[in-house]
Amino acid sequence: MQALWLEDRKLAVRDIETPAAADEALIRIRLSGVCGTDLELVRGYYPFTGVPGHEFAGEVVAAPDPSWVGARVVGEINASCGGCEACLNGRPTHCERRTVLGIVDRHGVHAEYTALPVGNLHRVPDSVPDEAAVFTEPLAAALEILQQVHVSPTDRVLLVGAGRLGQLVAQVLALTGAHLRVVARHARQRELLAARGIATIEEAEVEPRRWDVVVEATGSPSGFELARRAVRPRGTFVLKSTYRGELTLDMAPFVVDEITVIGSRCGPFAPALRLLERGDVDVSGMVDATFPLADAVTAMEAAARPGMMKVLLRP
Amino acid sequence: MQALWLEDRKLAVRDIETPAAADEALIRIRLSGVCGTDLELVRGYYPFTGVPGHEFAGEVVAAPDPSWVGARVVGEINASCGGCEACLNGRPTHCERRTVLGIVDRHGVHAEYTALPVGNLHRVPDSVPDEAAVFTEPLAAALEILQQVHVSPTDRVLLVGAGRLGQLVAQVLALTGAHLRVVARHARQRELLAARGIATIEEAEVEPRRWDVVVEATGSPSGFELARRAVRPRGTFVLKSTYRGELTLDMAPFVVDEITVIGSRCGPFAPALRLLERGDVDVSGMVDATFPLADAVTAMEAAARPGMMKVLLRP
Repeated sequence: MQALWLEDRKLAVRDIETPAAADEALIRIRLSGVCGTDLELVRGYYPFTGVPGHEFAGEVVAAPDPSWVGARVVGEINASCGGCEACLNGRPTHCERRTVLGIVDRHGVHAEYTALPVGNLHRVPDSVPDEAAVFTEPLAAALEILQQVHVSPTDRVLLVGAGRLGQLVAQVLALTGAHLRVVARHARQRELLAARGIATIEEAEVEPRRWDVVVEATGSPSGFELARRAVRPRGTFVLKSTYRGELTLDMAPFVVDEITVIGSRCGPFAPALRLLERGDVDVSGMVDATFPLADAVTAMEAAARPGMMKVLLRP
Repeated sequence: MQALWLEDRKLAVRDIETPAAADEALIRIRLSGVCGTDLELVRGYYPFTGVPGHEFAGEVVAAPDPSWVGARVVGEINASCGGCEACLNGRPTHCERRTVLGIVDRHGVHAEYTALPVGNLHRVPDSVPDEAAVFTEPLAAALEILQQVHVSPTDRVLLVGAGRLGQLVAQVLALTGAHLRVVARHARQRELLAARGIATIEEAEVEPRRWDVVVEATGSPSGFELARRAVRPRGTFVLKSTYRGELTLDMAPFVVDEITVIGSRCGPFAPALRLLERGDVDVSGMVDATFPLADAVTAMEAAARPGMMKVLLRP
């Protein structure tokens, strides 16, 4: 099959063997999405050799349980063992022996086919087109914030960053009814937010020590610093981006102000699909380009441009 | 009155004016305790000129409400305004206009007398001697952990650090019934813990990524690093010490492992007094030396020695 291949920080489209795991579902990719993590892999953020990509909508073409064959699906990206302490305690996304689709020891989805355990699959409602379903994984990651933090309708919530993931985080936070403001660097990001009735705020106008919940979604040291200063004493500071390299921090304010800092990663798929089905989250206008899989290298380069929203690949 | 005076990082015992605030209680100090924060003030960690000290047991000699006169008391150290957003939202220890006894804009307790608002005072039960009551403030700070974090009886809890504050944290955590282990650097610290049936663990034996709740009470970068490595994915990491200067951190593991980091400072006095009264927390053997107030400079030097437990001052 045709696939995008990453090796030694170099990308190429190649022919490789179609996955053939009898105990997993074989999925034909209908559409895949480029995530910031894919770009980090190319930069060598994690060591990874193989097919990158973990956002997709596809169709099951073979499965140990034949009732899945023909189903249009999305898939959770952490394949867990079911037997380790994390799995046995209800934290399968933290499985100690997990593989992660297109990220850790498992070929991903920028390809004609991918394989996943049947337990990772979710059927896509008929009313949700592939172009929306492909956002299920990042939307689930956005929802992980509400899985971890009780955002009250009366809270003042600040989101720093409105890129690919930030846009979905903004929509999810807006659904809480909280007083939400978003720091968005690019005009295009602000337009997308405005179209959804989500208010932005200039960086200089962010009152320090005033926000009940602050979500950092830039992954940059300057974004981290802006977000940190905004959190009120006893407030909650959610880290929704990974950070390349190290940050040098004065930890004393976190203690004196009794801040709660929460790292946030993968989230629940079922509510993400419910919100897409109900139309409570609107991904229209968030795709900047769709490339054929054959042009995947160009697509990855396009996705890396500053301010670029979602780039999709179609095999 | 006689008082210990700090100015330009230098300590001296002097005669100064007795406090005379008509709207506050005047308290004769019976016993005061030297805290790590007092030593940090001397090192210039915060700018402070005046009388240091915030741990005390005393007797009210004058008060706007005369029913307090003659009462043996301890006192909460944050004097709050009652009108700012933090106060109005039930967070008086985070008052935006607070003064803090012996720390921020308010003379402290290493003196013959101190002054505090009546609302800060708590009567000491008759059965609790001054030598125990003087531990109320740090014990309250230890209890703040349980105010912020639900420690379950089945949790694995690691405490890193068993100094003055760490000893009280250890006792409070042990009361939860959790599986508790303490990393204690000094033999004397281990003996005090052993006398209370609290198990210690060698640093090399701390299994990484295995502890549900980890409390860092050393304030050192090496303690922070040991504690960080010990927290399990989705676990809770409590910062119970302030850190001098900056730490350089790789934040990515906090995100990938979805760690919750919680800064923890001042805590509730009423439950601290209840535990002392019931004998559930035992401060016996934790005082290494008691000095007359006239020798306060020597006392502060003694308290700064590594492994030294509590040093008290008696006016």
